[in-house]
Amino acid sequence: MSELDAVLARIDADLDPSLERLFDWLRIPSVSADPAHAGDCRRAAEWLARDISGLGFTAGLEETAGHPIVLGRAPAPGKPRVLFYGHYDVQPADPVELWETPAFEPRVATLADGRKAIVARGACDDKGQVMTFVEACRAFKAVTGSLPVDVTLLVEGEEEVGSRHMPGFVESRRDELEADVALVCDTSMWDPRTPAITVSLRGLVYEEVTVKAADRDLHSGLFGGAAQNPIRVLAAIIAALHDPQGRVTLPGFYDGVPEPPADVVEQWRGLGLTAETFLGPVGLSVPAGERDRMVIEQIQSRPTCDVNGIFGGYTGPGAKTVIAAQATAKLSFRLVGAQDPDRIRASFRAFVRDRLPADCEAEFGAFSSSPAVALPYTMPALKRAQQALTDEWGREALAIGSGGSIPIVGDFKRTLGLDTLLVGFGLDDDRIHSPNEKYDLTSFHKGTRSWARILAALAQA
Amino acid sequence: MSELDAVLARIDADLDPSLERLFDWLRIPSVSADPAHAGDCRRAAEWLARDISGLGFTAGLEETAGHPIVLGRAPAPGKPRVLFYGHYDVQPADPVELWETPAFEPRVATLADGRKAIVARGACDDKGQVMTFVEACRAFKAVTGSLPVDVTLLVEGEEEVGSRHMPGFVESRRDELEADVALVCDTSMWDPRTPAITVSLRGLVYEEVTVKAADRDLHSGLFGGAAQNPIRVLAAIIAALHDPQGRVTLPGFYDGVPEPPADVVEQWRGLGLTAETFLGPVGLSVPAGERDRMVIEQIQSRPTCDVNGIFGGYTGPGAKTVIAAQATAKLSFRLVGAQDPDRIRASFRAFVRDRLPADCEAEFGAFSSSPAVALPYTMPALKRAQQALTDEWGREALAIGSGGSIPIVGDFKRTLGLDTLLVGFGLDDDRIHSPNEKYDLTSFHKGTRSWARILAALAQA
Repeated sequence: MSELDAVLARIDADLDPSLERLFDWLRIPSVSADPAHAGDCRRAAEWLARDISGLGFTAGLEETAGHPIVLGRAPAPGKPRVLFYGHYDVQPADPVELWETPAFEPRVATLADGRKAIVARGACDDKGQVMTFVEACRAFKAVTGSLPVDVTLLVEGEEEVGSRHMPGFVESRRDELEADVALVCDTSMWDPRTPAITVSLRGLVYEEVTVKAADRDLHSGLFGGAAQNPIRVLAAIIAALHDPQGRVTLPGFYDGVPEPPADVVEQWRGLGLTAETFLGPVGLSVPAGERDRMVIEQIQSRPTCDVNGIFGGYTGPGAKTVIAAQATAKLSFRLVGAQDPDRIRASFRAFVRDRLPADCEAEFGAFSSSPAVALPYTMPALKRAQQALTDEWGREALAIGSGGSIPIVGDFKRTLGLDTLLVGFGLDDDRIHSPNEKYDLTSFHKGTRSWARILAALAQA
Repeated sequence: MSELDAVLARIDADLDPSLERLFDWLRIPSVSADPAHAGDCRRAAEWLARDISGLGFTAGLEETAGHPIVLGRAPAPGKPRVLFYGHYDVQPADPVELWETPAFEPRVATLADGRKAIVARGACDDKGQVMTFVEACRAFKAVTGSLPVDVTLLVEGEEEVGSRHMPGFVESRRDELEADVALVCDTSMWDPRTPAITVSLRGLVYEEVTVKAADRDLHSGLFGGAAQNPIRVLAAIIAALHDPQGRVTLPGFYDGVPEPPADVVEQWRGLGLTAETFLGPVGLSVPAGERDRMVIEQIQSRPTCDVNGIFGGYTGPGAKTVIAAQATAKLSFRLVGAQDPDRIRASFRAFVRDRLPADCEAEFGAFSSSPAVALPYTMPALKRAQQALTDEWGREALAIGSGGSIPIVGDFKRTLGLDTLLVGFGLDDDRIHSPNEKYDLTSFHKGTRSWARILAALAQA
């Protein structure tokens, strides 16, 4: 039995205890967006630091002005060096009433098609994914007494709220974080049987805008007709953000958006991602983006604008005849190519201000701001990792684009000069950010085995 | 000293105890919109029935499928008969954090300009107003041993949620409710020194619409661009409800809207209601309604459409990259003239459905549905009441239109053949339906005196 086979056998034998460890972590409601959960975020960080301390890591918490960062070092002089990144924070569980079982009481459920899955907030995004890497390290340590490569582990607690403190942290600790390649486990497979490495990520600009009119809520019987209604103003602004062809109307929005070469488009066409296969599972059937683009373009290579939330006026049960003093929307822009986050934010704010009628003003809040990232197809680690994944899953691992945004990848490149290998085992039906988030047991188990194979492959570099 | 003078003197002497009684009633949080306050609504009804039982009324609670109705009868054979209507339910107190003191802990505050006012939810709308009538009855009973007219008192608990059960109740008890004129105390003065009788009321159609797209919340990173966004769809529908001139775009919306005669318009112009005087006090300056209409038309004689509330997606602090499964808005239409509530509701629903893109559906909820009401200037009781008000306030009482809606007035006409005298002592700055609702102490005191004068005047009919 080769060393790798022994490590894989160990992972198989250790599956139940590894699940128990993940469940322990999932029980901590580390919701970074809610200040009431700050203590839970710290507990989740401490849990991980303690857990990896048993695997040869020197690990501790690095304080920030927000939630702490877990930093672990397992040096292996002379060996290739990897910098693994993940996050321990999770999305809020709301609407909580739509969870079949409580969000922070993990369980293994059997899906309608017989698949088994871990159900909990964070099961996939990102605690479950992080633990595939940690468990692979644990198996190496158990079987060989050490890790096959030099590992720095960096797990933050603010990914879901814009990773505010990561760029500064990476900048200030650049010497300690030196490596040959960065690894991130926060992405998806192509489908439940086909592994994938993500080679491009969309950027993200997230804005909150509040439109204000009267200095108080008004009775619509007395003032209706004459008083400006901020919900109506906000609705008109949101409605104006797209034209009938589904294009975003912000001036300069498409500056820097590249057209993919014809052969790449042809390749995409060959993947057969249809509205039916992609949208059907969530109850939709017609792509809602730019009319002249394929679904795969709409979700990967084209920029978007989405309203993520809106509220104003009376939102309780029944009727209240009020004209609200203000209304708020949360919007995000997914960016591609060379789109500039700062210019798009400025363009959005000007767009809003240009459309404010008399008596209205707007206030803005800025959250994420990251450009798109594209990784070089020629990365040496890419081919090794692809082969390792292909060996594990028995199907050729694809190099794909992702519609999501992982801002840290751009920082790793800019600050550390590092390319990032984005390997993840999420699936489209994982309901991340939604009620009943899950992570297939197969993703967890074979994901752990995949990392073992990838670490072994990288060790031979 | 005449009998009326003695009654007025009694009202003056009884001011402090009458305030204490009102405060007792205001302390009961009878929020009809919130099922959690159903018990409080019943307590508020019981409080009033008990209070008027001491004034010669036979009073009790009439059960409905919702909150009970207080019905009191004080017969006076051979005398003119009045049917007084009011409501004991109040609007929700939210946003509670904007109240300077708790909404259900009434107090007397001194305003910046020296006026004294009762501050509490319901201080004006409608408990304070109802008690001006009750206290006038109490003073008559104390001084003369009886009431000067035959009084039926009808105080419901569902006015703020659409008076769902009143039409049926009035229909089923038409014989008991027979009278010569109906009285309602739920309207406003022209200004703090000028009393007014309201002779026209706008109607009301209130709708809730929920637009649904995917069968679950989606991650905007994975699905953004391709998945239909119900907030965007709802915003586009709301934005389309008005044209750039401020007119409502629903087909048929203006059917039945009368143009006032030139001399009436001239009279309105003479009232000098400007954007500055009407909107200035709430921090606005430019009328937001139909561009070619005066402010007084926009708020009284023209129909309107307002969004009263909207919610969808993530509404908590910070950022969440979600595409919501659904979004909801609450909208109301104020009607005038012969506009038909049913046709306008149907037109709105068709308007929404016509604008739903693929993969979206809409669900509707119906709340209020009442046509506009206009009272005859020739009502015999009108001149008597105007003179009584003029006597009390020392300024000529105006006959005015109101932008608000009191659906019961139409039912009184249709079912009982009764015209309604709408006399109220609210002021534009009373913040009804808003935090820090108040009722001027002068409104309460001179309002009570006004009712004593009106009852005395009606007794001579």
